[in-house]
Amino acid sequence: MEFSSKLLEKAVNEMAQLPGIGKRTALRLVLHLLKQPVEQTQFLSQALTSMREEIKFCKNCHNISDVEVCEICNNPSRNHKIICVVEDVRDVMAIENTNQFKGIYHVLGGKISPIDGVGPSQLNIKSLVDKVALGQTEELIFALSSTMEGDTTNFYIFKQIKDFDIKTSTIARGIAIGDELEYADEVTLGRSILNRVPFENSLKNL
Amino acid sequence: MEFSSKLLEKAVNEMAQLPGIGKRTALRLVLHLLKQPVEQTQFLSQALTSMREEIKFCKNCHNISDVEVCEICNNPSRNHKIICVVEDVRDVMAIENTNQFKGIYHVLGGKISPIDGVGPSQLNIKSLVDKVALGQTEELIFALSSTMEGDTTNFYIFKQIKDFDIKTSTIARGIAIGDELEYADEVTLGRSILNRVPFENSLKNL
Ligand SMILES: [Zn+2]
Ligand SMILES: [Zn+2]
Repeated sequence: MEFSSKLLEKAVNEMAQLPGIGKRTALRLVLHLLKQPVEQTQFLSQALTSMREEIKFCKNCHNISDVEVCEICNNPSRNHKIICVVEDVRDVMAIENTNQFKGIYHVLGGKISPIDGVGPSQLNIKSLVDKVALGQTEELIFALSSTMEGDTTNFYIFKQIKDFDIKTSTIARGIAIGDELEYADEVTLGRSILNRVPFENSLKNL
Repeated sequence: MEFSSKLLEKAVNEMAQLPGIGKRTALRLVLHLLKQPVEQTQFLSQALTSMREEIKFCKNCHNISDVEVCEICNNPSRNHKIICVVEDVRDVMAIENTNQFKGIYHVLGGKISPIDGVGPSQLNIKSLVDKVALGQTEELIFALSSTMEGDTTNFYIFKQIKDFDIKTSTIARGIAIGDELEYADEVTLGRSILNRVPFENSLKNL
């Protein structure tokens, strides 16, 4: 790509560093900003740098927070004995949206992935094990994505905490509500048959 | 979407103002920045604001430029008597990439579009007509996209300059080289038959 301006080229190249944003898309976005009032670009830049420089992670669960301990951890009406282990902040937001979980979270910050060079020490695993070791936790719910990396991470954590008197569970996998069986992938379908639940349980949702 | 941090929410909302970037994508991009060194966000923000605040448009052709007159207009070996009329900077870049055009450009900055509230006065049309009126131009090549708005814009300009002694042309439309006829849309296919060229001409590309 030949640019007629170094300023344009630099903006496009920085934008194209973002995942999933190629050079063409970056150029389209940057040219859009050029057509908007200068304030829009200033607000965007300011919001990004403030966020990056000032954001905090909850001391307790590693969730993103503007304060030392996040609202969820700080909420006395939540059950602090049930910890849902998730990969990142988006998972917390997704589960919170369901309004079905009233425990607290532990955000790992990723999954163990030797290919990507991510080992256990780069994730928030030690603080989770330390928390469990205090003996106040009744249940850990593993809510990682069900990939090889997710399974590896679950198992790694499981090995570290299995000697403590604590219940562990994983979120149920199955056919999404409203989905046609014929379009489901066979692994999911197989698991959903193996992990079938008593019919009465399904009535609870009605 | 419920955010655990105002800083995060603000960054996501600003990012989601960009065209084609929904809230979910914005969140993914912002969380990516959080995992990268703080400098990456600072470089991105700085590149965007510098670009937006300092960029210039060529006095002659309205192409984006870091100087008053762009490199193309400033190049004495280019034919200043042939002007290629394009919608925006991306079109200049695309045509320059072909290495097939040695004239100069005129960047309109958009197309006439009553639906989007874009009239002729918001585009760089007057400066084009003024340039043609100087009597130094031999040919205008219309290279706008072939949509209703593109055709309207071409015709609007054509009416303003038709009394001058000047050649006008539009870029050829047809089946892309390497494309299967059966997948071409019928309008393009129809035009490519009507505007067929002598077979000898096609040999020039071999
Ligand atoms: Zn927390
Ligand atoms: Zn120029």
